[in-house]
Amino acid sequence: MSINYIQHFSECIDGIKAEGRYRYFAQLERIVGDFPNAIYTNPSGERKQVKIWCGNDYLGMGQNPVVIKAAHEAIDRCGTGAGGTRNISGTMTYHVDLEESVADLHHKDAGLVFSSGYVANEGTLSTLGKLLPDCVIFSDELNHASMVHGIRMSKCEKYIFRHNDVEHLEYLLKSVDISRPKIIAFESVYSMEGDIGPISIIADLAEKYNAITYLDEVHAVGIYGSRGGGITDELGIMDRIDIIEGTFGKGYGSMGGFITGNRYIIDAIRSFASGFIFTTSLPPATLAASLASVEYLKSSSKERKKLHSNVRFFKKIIRKAGLKFYDGDTHIVPLIVGEPICCREITNILLNEYNIYVQPINYPTVPRGTERLRLTASSVHTTEDIQAMADTLEHLWIHNHVFNNIKTSQDDVLLSV
Amino acid sequence: MSINYIQHFSECIDGIKAEGRYRYFAQLERIVGDFPNAIYTNPSGERKQVKIWCGNDYLGMGQNPVVIKAAHEAIDRCGTGAGGTRNISGTMTYHVDLEESVADLHHKDAGLVFSSGYVANEGTLSTLGKLLPDCVIFSDELNHASMVHGIRMSKCEKYIFRHNDVEHLEYLLKSVDISRPKIIAFESVYSMEGDIGPISIIADLAEKYNAITYLDEVHAVGIYGSRGGGITDELGIMDRIDIIEGTFGKGYGSMGGFITGNRYIIDAIRSFASGFIFTTSLPPATLAASLASVEYLKSSSKERKKLHSNVRFFKKIIRKAGLKFYDGDTHIVPLIVGEPICCREITNILLNEYNIYVQPINYPTVPRGTERLRLTASSVHTTEDIQAMADTLEHLWIHNHVFNNIKTSQDDVLLSV
Repeated sequence: MSINYIQHFSECIDGIKAEGRYRYFAQLERIVGDFPNAIYTNPSGERKQVKIWCGNDYLGMGQNPVVIKAAHEAIDRCGTGAGGTRNISGTMTYHVDLEESVADLHHKDAGLVFSSGYVANEGTLSTLGKLLPDCVIFSDELNHASMVHGIRMSKCEKYIFRHNDVEHLEYLLKSVDISRPKIIAFESVYSMEGDIGPISIIADLAEKYNAITYLDEVHAVGIYGSRGGGITDELGIMDRIDIIEGTFGKGYGSMGGFITGNRYIIDAIRSFASGFIFTTSLPPATLAASLASVEYLKSSSKERKKLHSNVRFFKKIIRKAGLKFYDGDTHIVPLIVGEPICCREITNILLNEYNIYVQPINYPTVPRGTERLRLTASSVHTTEDIQAMADTLEHLWIHNHVFNNIKTSQDDVLLSV
Repeated sequence: MSINYIQHFSECIDGIKAEGRYRYFAQLERIVGDFPNAIYTNPSGERKQVKIWCGNDYLGMGQNPVVIKAAHEAIDRCGTGAGGTRNISGTMTYHVDLEESVADLHHKDAGLVFSSGYVANEGTLSTLGKLLPDCVIFSDELNHASMVHGIRMSKCEKYIFRHNDVEHLEYLLKSVDISRPKIIAFESVYSMEGDIGPISIIADLAEKYNAITYLDEVHAVGIYGSRGGGITDELGIMDRIDIIEGTFGKGYGSMGGFITGNRYIIDAIRSFASGFIFTTSLPPATLAASLASVEYLKSSSKERKKLHSNVRFFKKIIRKAGLKFYDGDTHIVPLIVGEPICCREITNILLNEYNIYVQPINYPTVPRGTERLRLTASSVHTTEDIQAMADTLEHLWIHNHVFNNIKTSQDDVLLSV
């Protein structure tokens, strides 16, 4: 009997609904000049103002006047689209300038801009793996989906090392013939854990076993380092990583991804990566906004300072209130719930009763049983915003049945970390 | 002995340089209000005005005042970036409206917007293939790289049918157990050939063999049909295709990709496609520009009429001049050269001596031996622009040694089509 396609896909949807991990997208409009405030429209079309507590525009650069002005100017100069792929009429002066700007950011030979951080990771890792004969890829178990996708596409032999476990990584490196090409792929700030990779030690291992290092700094660029180069900038070890990958879509408040590195490596990715070659290039306004933002944050530190002091304050008061979160020394605060349906219920209460928008984070973004609220205080949250959020969470924690139900599972998860 | 990575990548680059297919990106800035004119900056930094003859902004929508105004307004309302993935704070009212707009365009239940057409093809085909148990995919041999990528990622059994060859397709369909799920993936306008797929016949076969039809209309949306729905709109057969894929980056003058189809299929892709889920969503300005452009072209036909009359005029005069091109009944005019080094030399002459920018199209965008100039007259080229281009090509054809060298190989290629 032939398949009924519609029924099949309908059943796929029913399956994730039954697991409580069906995604309902919240419809939002951020208010320029008033971030983190946004207008939320509910499914019945009613609108109200909310505060966003889970965004990635950590420094509010999406409303920075310098960045906004650059976007407007680019539209008036070159229009709304690029009109072609990078190779076929779609390379603008903005691309050239932006690629120079990110190369300078990381003190590397060259940079390359992609449509997104996802495409940068997928395209670069798959291409590196294909170009290096008999290559082996070593990948942190918590690497982002885009890196996993790229590693799969490379068709290389691969080894997954336990999260941030350098002993496990060395054990695996040792097991492979020293003469084979190797790539170690990992992140600086892990977005869902909020912790930091052991970058220096991994760089040591890479040297010892002659591996290329590929570091995803998407949640760190703009935010760490004296010029916003990321965690490697903060630690003064940018030169120890072969390829640094970043995004303009988070700390820089725009959109697009990039890599920086040696000129021949970058030129090879530029010349062979399918996801880079065969796609319309980014619009002028997006490139101009990204460029203005990267350059602005090379010299301005006040947004970074404000972000970090906000996060320290927030962590301090929720810790005092007895709330349990992963404290990974970064600006990301994951509050573990450990169950998808409660996770959604808590966020519904926050949205409906407190006008606070936090998206529940469920599988497959995080492993089952570690469902969480991923809270991000940004540089544009006020002290009052932060105090109010902490008070709300504390109140719910003590008085609400949903939190009572999940306390045990939350303790289990935190103990297992 | 361990590999020297830098040397290895340097040799990869030398390899493509030796083949004459190394890509030099032309640095351009299109001039708003004056498309197809742009400022070209050469590698020494000298600037001059050129006419673009290979862009995909076929209707000049990237400079349309309605579209530009929408982009400006969105920046002033919501800022330069989305601030998150679609699921985590990155869904805006613009997304909701744009997805309704494309669903309406194709008279389908639902639409879904992706970062690019590439990601739409890759994400949708890979996800469909993974969700359908024991699925088989049938793919036209000239399908775009993004479809090939998606089909590979699906890990399904696949059959490649000869370009537009419905007899071959039926032969392959027959060879597979009727009860297995099947997808037929193909395009309406093939960008590099400029020809049109046999959509109705493929839809008949899909019905007969119970296959899902997936149609890429990226070079057709905005450009064909009474409301810009594409070739299926023009032919009145949108209802015969299960999933129609399009882009905002070509005829609509903006950026991003989309699919339209049955609500359960769209919801399944939305819920399972990695490249859709794990990436920052498009910026407000891009979405607003796309929405304005799609809606504008639903009611305005003058841009489409101008484009098609310009193309008819161009084809007529270059045919009269004895130039040989694939005439596939579309707006794309592929002039075959058949050799990568001559192909580049001709475009260098056009750029340096005539201020006409055309990018040479070499392998792997097209098969080796079929290297070409892919000429696109747009709705914003004037009659004088078109006459001047035809005169230039005719002059080069008769008097230039490069063209003399390639005439034989060009005839061979055209005869083989």
